Amino acid sequence: MPDEIGLFEAIDTQRGLRQFKPDPVPDEMITRLLRAAIKAPSGGVRQGWSFIVIRDEETRRKIGDLYRTGSRFDIRDDMSTQQRRVYRRAQHLEDHMEDVPVFILACIEGGPGGPVSGASIYPAVQNILLAARGLGLASVLTTRQSRFEPEIKDILGIPENVTTAAILPIGFPAEGVRYGPTRRRPLEEVAFDGHWGNTWKTEAE
Amino acid sequence: MPDEIGLFEAIDTQRGLRQFKPDPVPDEMITRLLRAAIKAPSGGVRQGWSFIVIRDEETRRKIGDLYRTGSRFDIRDDMSTQQRRVYRRAQHLEDHMEDVPVFILACIEGGPGGPVSGASIYPAVQNILLAARGLGLASVLTTRQSRFEPEIKDILGIPENVTTAAILPIGFPAEGVRYGPTRRRPLEEVAFDGHWGNTWKTEAE
Repeated sequence: MPDEIGLFEAIDTQRGLRQFKPDPVPDEMITRLLRAAIKAPSGGVRQGWSFIVIRDEETRRKIGDLYRTGSRFDIRDDMSTQQRRVYRRAQHLEDHMEDVPVFILACIEGGPGGPVSGASIYPAVQNILLAARGLGLASVLTTRQSRFEPEIKDILGIPENVTTAAILPIGFPAEGVRYGPTRRRPLEEVAFDGHWGNTWKTEAE
Repeated sequence: MPDEIGLFEAIDTQRGLRQFKPDPVPDEMITRLLRAAIKAPSGGVRQGWSFIVIRDEETRRKIGDLYRTGSRFDIRDDMSTQQRRVYRRAQHLEDHMEDVPVFILACIEGGPGGPVSGASIYPAVQNILLAARGLGLASVLTTRQSRFEPEIKDILGIPENVTTAAILPIGFPAEGVRYGPTRRRPLEEVAFDGHWGNTWKTEAE
């Protein structure tokens, strides 16, 4: 395992990486990601989460075939350069899903018609992404498996009262692929002091 | 600021802490939490998130008054000791909301009737919780503000097309309050290898 990196270094440089080496990922690294996941908060300590690790070729090919039938990203001229680049890479990933060595599918109890709480699964997903950053693995949060919810649940034998929340592709980053820092809307636009619209003042850095 | 702690130390010991000292939290610490938040992934890089820092007494009192009118936790004998303890502390917190020195209210674009994506706000919320752990602050993920959504939006001037996702109480931990490790359902129950029900095998630790 790589040396432990600092918390804030991990947070500040975590970034969606969508290009992977085909090399397998050691079991103990995957276990470390999963152990990170289940440390996240869970509403009422219910822990209705589950995580399916997908590595076998046939399942990855089935998922790849599904994704190629899905809606494509709508990449428009009025988007920012950053957005267009992200969407192009996301489309490339979806066209070649079976090339990713590992997926982790995060699920949460709560079926069709019942309440599904993102608050009890996406913190665990974020822990996986940060842990991947910490181990030098590439990953990215994707939720577009929801387009194929019934098919994916059928392939993986997922019970009716369980909903798929995210698929995280996992692998070592392809040559030349780097972690952040990422560009973000400035804090001044999104953080408020006491009331909507009242800018949170930060000291110059 | 405290020395930086390791990523996995933060993940493994992060825990919902619900008892706070009344002491104020330095601005630069709050800014650090907010900077951590906006490093999280956001679907399509849209970043439709916002974070309101609530510190003034009158607003905290209004929120405290609201919470005392709300439904109470249903603490039952058939719950585990851990769950009952968590619920009792959560009820105590809700009965004394105005005693917490700071709240961060996390919001996401997407109004009533529109789609709201937890995947684009709860990763940011988890970054705040981990950053709080890193800075030696107490916090806990709560979503029960949704019971008072219209009132809270009115108090804080939040636009109609924005939804409240979570309130994070923030402060220094009360005397004797400690971070984890937390107890969790074992990985073997919630992690699967290739197919639902097929236990993910881990090496003995």
